[in-house]
Amino acid sequence: MQLRIPGPTPLPDEVLDAMHRPMISHREGEFRAMLFDITEHLKRSFQTEGDVLVFPGVGTGGMEAAIANLFSPGDRVICASAGAFGDRFGEIASRFGLDIVYVRSRWGEAIDLQALEVSLEVMGKVAGVLLTHNETSTGVQHDIEAASRLVRGSGNPDALVVVDAISSMGAVDIPVDRWEIDVAITASQKAWMAPPGLTMLSVSERAWAATERATLPHYYWDFQVARRFARRGETPYTPAVGLLFGLQASLHMLAGEGLARVFARHTELRDRVRQLARRAGLVPLASDEIASRTVTALRVPEGMRARQVTELMRERGVIVAGGQGALEDAIIRIGHMGFVSPADIDVTMLALAQVTAELSMSDGRELVPSTAGAA
Amino acid sequence: MQLRIPGPTPLPDEVLDAMHRPMISHREGEFRAMLFDITEHLKRSFQTEGDVLVFPGVGTGGMEAAIANLFSPGDRVICASAGAFGDRFGEIASRFGLDIVYVRSRWGEAIDLQALEVSLEVMGKVAGVLLTHNETSTGVQHDIEAASRLVRGSGNPDALVVVDAISSMGAVDIPVDRWEIDVAITASQKAWMAPPGLTMLSVSERAWAATERATLPHYYWDFQVARRFARRGETPYTPAVGLLFGLQASLHMLAGEGLARVFARHTELRDRVRQLARRAGLVPLASDEIASRTVTALRVPEGMRARQVTELMRERGVIVAGGQGALEDAIIRIGHMGFVSPADIDVTMLALAQVTAELSMSDGRELVPSTAGAA
Repeated sequence: MQLRIPGPTPLPDEVLDAMHRPMISHREGEFRAMLFDITEHLKRSFQTEGDVLVFPGVGTGGMEAAIANLFSPGDRVICASAGAFGDRFGEIASRFGLDIVYVRSRWGEAIDLQALEVSLEVMGKVAGVLLTHNETSTGVQHDIEAASRLVRGSGNPDALVVVDAISSMGAVDIPVDRWEIDVAITASQKAWMAPPGLTMLSVSERAWAATERATLPHYYWDFQVARRFARRGETPYTPAVGLLFGLQASLHMLAGEGLARVFARHTELRDRVRQLARRAGLVPLASDEIASRTVTALRVPEGMRARQVTELMRERGVIVAGGQGALEDAIIRIGHMGFVSPADIDVTMLALAQVTAELSMSDGRELVPSTAGAA
Repeated sequence: MQLRIPGPTPLPDEVLDAMHRPMISHREGEFRAMLFDITEHLKRSFQTEGDVLVFPGVGTGGMEAAIANLFSPGDRVICASAGAFGDRFGEIASRFGLDIVYVRSRWGEAIDLQALEVSLEVMGKVAGVLLTHNETSTGVQHDIEAASRLVRGSGNPDALVVVDAISSMGAVDIPVDRWEIDVAITASQKAWMAPPGLTMLSVSERAWAATERATLPHYYWDFQVARRFARRGETPYTPAVGLLFGLQASLHMLAGEGLARVFARHTELRDRVRQLARRAGLVPLASDEIASRTVTALRVPEGMRARQVTELMRERGVIVAGGQGALEDAIIRIGHMGFVSPADIDVTMLALAQVTAELSMSDGRELVPSTAGAA
């Protein structure tokens, strides 16, 4: 099976093998050395001199952690959203009692920088701006660099720039310090080629100052306590030791390949997917200039449903994802992050070309029975 | 190395092998079948007809999840504590703005049932009682059955009984429904023989009703959303798929052994540890009638420090834990939960007998240099 969903992503043998070993104590030297090593590698990928913390949990937990550590009830926060995960970030903030103003764009488009600029000027004090770097539901890579510059140049220069980079960090060039991102969030099962269950976050000096003022309740996700323990190579409570074995192995693979080459490979994979899609007559949801480097959403041709395409793809041994929300049956999504080669993309796109050709010849007749197990 | 700490615990080959396989999609039939299977097995171990939910995170996250889903700011809650983890439960509740009244006993003793009874009567309305079934910091198994009966028979019969059973559920007979426990929490790296990174919780009907009223903020840990997805074999966000492969394998092993035999084995391991400890002249911290079936704390003999004992044990290939808090250097703790045999205990206790004999002969001189790497 080819797993071509936008996470969890395929695991290299090196990662699987690294996790196939006896458990160790998390209060011993071997663990401490591993946590230090992982943290150093992560800082290089995040391109930050600041702190990077690792928590047991998945990306949504990292988003909740950022909200709970940085803000207080009633804080006014802007959420720029153009997809399911942008909306999720705003929803988490709402659940925690923040005063959210959405700057929304249509799914498949870029976030609206002009509307963001206006909002920053007219809204009075803004405690933070929630952004999505790579919108996994639409395959759009948003211009976080420009968004961050707008914040710093606005009447709210100290607003926290909090970025969901869950499905792009590690695969895409996101210089956290240079772009003045206060918290960037990612998760192990995306570009990092490890199983799901770890979320990793960078924390800037501005963000640390915010944690001193913030009053939202948290214990599990406490940044300050995590940093205090991390400085001696430990965690406040039991870490996900086995997953850290895997993450360490994948970080060493990424370091061996070299960051620049990893970034270039993902750009190439994106271009290849789009080129082969168009050759098969399929139209990407996102335009070229905002196309994600890690996940591509393709409109299913007129008369087909996404579910038909994903079912027939599965029969050919390739697992791709359908759409989310209103796009559920209108697009398919192909993950190309982490442990993926051009050859993997070719297999995927060949299967897709065959499936859509088959469906278009069937002239609208139902090729895939809707009940499982039927002939 | 023999890993004899109270978690993470050793992994059987079956569990390691189960995780050594390609990643799968969490929105496909194979995953759904696995989640249903895991849930059914967990319900049998918890002895409940109610719901059991699984979250990516460790036990402390499960504790936070219980607090955030069940209560509202200012709710009055009793926390019965006699150790580090009892205190942690109260601390989490405090951080979330609950009005905590501690019923404390000395570390190494049982929770004070009489004081709990009085508190339930004199305190007016109580929203819940936080209990620890197995206090990992002292090796005491508290009488949760009696505590729950006190709650139900008190002037606060509807108070929620919330139990940290992190280090005992799965190894010890804890009939959740019969004892009317509203939420019981456990974690994969304890009796379940799997790596850390999953927390599992049972939720009673009374607890579900409480989630309707509760206003504390939460998103990641949302019980209601998790139940809605679990009913169709899914999770609201990416689950820790690889760890679930491991947990499923361990649950099948436990089912093969049979619950009654698993429980009996842990009682035998406890008795064996205590018998061999006494034979070596070591005194357990907890008295026999309240002794934990999964972790034993032993006082280090007069003139020795726990750190010396654990260091010399490590040199003999056995990893045991020191104490926590005020007991840090006064006790060692031996984990005997999950994938542990009587022979493992014999190896551990022989090493311990040799180490303490050696230290007592050294007549107080420092046997273990305090800097690592020294001769």
